[in-house]
Amino acid sequence: MSKPLSVGVAGLGTVGAGVLRLLRDNAEVIQARAGRPVAVVAVSARDRTRDRGVPTGGLRWYEDAAGLASDPGVDAVVELIGGSDGPARALVQAALAAGKPVITANKALMAVHGAELASQAEAAGVALAFEAAVAGGIPVIKALREGLAANRVDRVAGILNGTCNYILTEMGRGGREFADVLADAQRLGYAEADPAFDIDGVDAAHKLAILAALAFNQPVDFGAVHVEGIRQVSALDIAFAAELGYRIKLLGIARRTEAGIETRVHPCMVPLSDPIARVDGVFNAVVAEGDPVGRVMLQGRGAGAGPTASAVVSDLIDLAQNRRTPAWGATGAALHRLPSVPISAHHGAYYLRLMVVDRPGVIADVTAALRDAGVSLESMIQRGRAPGEAVPVVLVTHECNEAAMRRAVDAIAAMDAVLEPPALIRIEPA
Amino acid sequence: MSKPLSVGVAGLGTVGAGVLRLLRDNAEVIQARAGRPVAVVAVSARDRTRDRGVPTGGLRWYEDAAGLASDPGVDAVVELIGGSDGPARALVQAALAAGKPVITANKALMAVHGAELASQAEAAGVALAFEAAVAGGIPVIKALREGLAANRVDRVAGILNGTCNYILTEMGRGGREFADVLADAQRLGYAEADPAFDIDGVDAAHKLAILAALAFNQPVDFGAVHVEGIRQVSALDIAFAAELGYRIKLLGIARRTEAGIETRVHPCMVPLSDPIARVDGVFNAVVAEGDPVGRVMLQGRGAGAGPTASAVVSDLIDLAQNRRTPAWGATGAALHRLPSVPISAHHGAYYLRLMVVDRPGVIADVTAALRDAGVSLESMIQRGRAPGEAVPVVLVTHECNEAAMRRAVDAIAAMDAVLEPPALIRIEPA
Repeated sequence: MSKPLSVGVAGLGTVGAGVLRLLRDNAEVIQARAGRPVAVVAVSARDRTRDRGVPTGGLRWYEDAAGLASDPGVDAVVELIGGSDGPARALVQAALAAGKPVITANKALMAVHGAELASQAEAAGVALAFEAAVAGGIPVIKALREGLAANRVDRVAGILNGTCNYILTEMGRGGREFADVLADAQRLGYAEADPAFDIDGVDAAHKLAILAALAFNQPVDFGAVHVEGIRQVSALDIAFAAELGYRIKLLGIARRTEAGIETRVHPCMVPLSDPIARVDGVFNAVVAEGDPVGRVMLQGRGAGAGPTASAVVSDLIDLAQNRRTPAWGATGAALHRLPSVPISAHHGAYYLRLMVVDRPGVIADVTAALRDAGVSLESMIQRGRAPGEAVPVVLVTHECNEAAMRRAVDAIAAMDAVLEPPALIRIEPA
Repeated sequence: MSKPLSVGVAGLGTVGAGVLRLLRDNAEVIQARAGRPVAVVAVSARDRTRDRGVPTGGLRWYEDAAGLASDPGVDAVVELIGGSDGPARALVQAALAAGKPVITANKALMAVHGAELASQAEAAGVALAFEAAVAGGIPVIKALREGLAANRVDRVAGILNGTCNYILTEMGRGGREFADVLADAQRLGYAEADPAFDIDGVDAAHKLAILAALAFNQPVDFGAVHVEGIRQVSALDIAFAAELGYRIKLLGIARRTEAGIETRVHPCMVPLSDPIARVDGVFNAVVAEGDPVGRVMLQGRGAGAGPTASAVVSDLIDLAQNRRTPAWGATGAALHRLPSVPISAHHGAYYLRLMVVDRPGVIADVTAALRDAGVSLESMIQRGRAPGEAVPVVLVTHECNEAAMRRAVDAIAAMDAVLEPPALIRIEPA
């Protein structure tokens, strides 16, 4: 039996306590698969007195997380503090500088500073692992970076935020509006008291930036991601989506196009024929399309103490077994930066829903605006008549350029007969 | 740049040629992710003259595959000959004996001789990798063995044979009978001229034996798998399944029970609410249930030159990067053999469909036989009346013991009014 892998854990919130509990409860299988015991020897957290459901007596305790980096008895540092900067970043830098491998669940940190941290890890010759940063317990990073490593990947897309997926699913089930369902989700603990990070798409964008870097072997580039959240999605649009054979999902999509790499997070109309359209509630799913493997989809729980701890400890087992993979799938010298394609250059089909005054000539004006921008229509729904009153009109376009579509929508929004800001949702092919 | 990984490939059929093509077409990404070039230097196949769509000039050629094992220029051997014995087994043994790592796509070999071969590889200190042996391009072995390594796995289940899934899907679409769809599948190349291996469940059982060994860290035990194929599945049962909210799928299921490990391959009634019920056509899917990760599902193409080559080359990349995992997830000393539970001890619900003479008293006799065996009914369908003629009767039971159910079915089959052998299909909860 080799010597134990001695671990320092920074951050004892839900996930940190989950990691300690998992290493205790599954000690036997973990040791068998790691080839040696994996033991936490030191921790860092503010409150020493809180009951975390797992004993912490006998562990060395650091008020300042950076103490873990300089503890000579710590072989590997697990960062579960969170946040793209501050103590999390300082700890990771200190640990790598001390020549210690780092495991983190921190998507914000990896999305914002991951390029620089990967270089630092490579220079130090130690691992920087972050399976828990994307899709919780689903081993998507391992699948993309190792399992599909023989492929040229052309597209990665996924439901990356369980809070948004829960809200959209519930809106669809009950015909309820966003604000109402959000309040419920907060009561149930599926959404934070300050939900902006989730519902504005930032969390999904962090994860997408990481997936894109892995898929295309380029340094992570969070700034390139176009981000829209789900605040504007209405029960009405969800109902129309169902009628048209779609589900509305917040997707993160990274795609290789002739012009470069498109990375975007926004609500999408997903055809019901696509399995991802049926991934509901707090579940996450990721689809990778590679040549020659075709489409591979992974789904499971994307958050929570258990699934996240599962991912963190799988990274610890890799470390114990000396299985190493460069952070972004290849060493720095083999990474390349492909051009980033702005959202204005996106090419696709659109769902456009208007509230218009029901009077002669309005549809003619709307369709003329689309024609003038070079956008052609695939279908239109104007259900119910209420002369002189507000009625919804839904238009589905053929594939066109985003900039052209935006021009048409601006012109339409300015019309007297158009009573509310138009709802524009991209249709994402299966 | 480190020196290339020099590979010898035995077997240049569809998959072998696919591996050569992939290593050529994706050479750049493969080199970036492998950290060095991966180059085929020697091959073995019978026919030197056949056009395989990829040049083989300049490669050393062996009539006898074992020549690859003794070629001093070959660092790693890829076995794509197939078959559980004969030249495939001889090559793998010779390569391991020569201290060379082996990558194989051979599920029969791994299912039947995998325990012994893993011991040989461990003693030699070299890798024995077989990602391509299960579910083609879907990285299920990596996911189970590494990605979910922190979990106690309690159940692995999957659609493991694309031919069977294609046939069952087509039967469901067209209301057509097995023999008719099989003939079509053979014409389209989705089924072999001799389809027994697929449709009798043997191929799925090989794969399930491998998954069970990985999930529970025990030496692979093909002999323990209970196997039934799909020849007996009728269009009538597929139609009743749809009416009851199920799909009929050939599943491989490995489950930890209080008595030990259950491994079985047979047609199942899968609730439509289970995502696996919607995995259609030639696609494969695997669900793993672990503590604490919960349910994780992977789906994709389970066969074909491209997906299989993707898996083989991902193993080559692991090898090039010196990422090693014991064949069954832990070294021999850490494996344990749990008791194997016979199918007679299975506990579950059943679908039973009879063809009976439509006359008074028959249902009373049938339900009495079930009662006498201690089997209780959840529901019954007797649709349409045709006094004195044959009509189908469907019975769905509550959970009961397989041995009791078998007793009841034997008694029912012996009744005068029961005109055909009863159709018995296990219901598998989602």
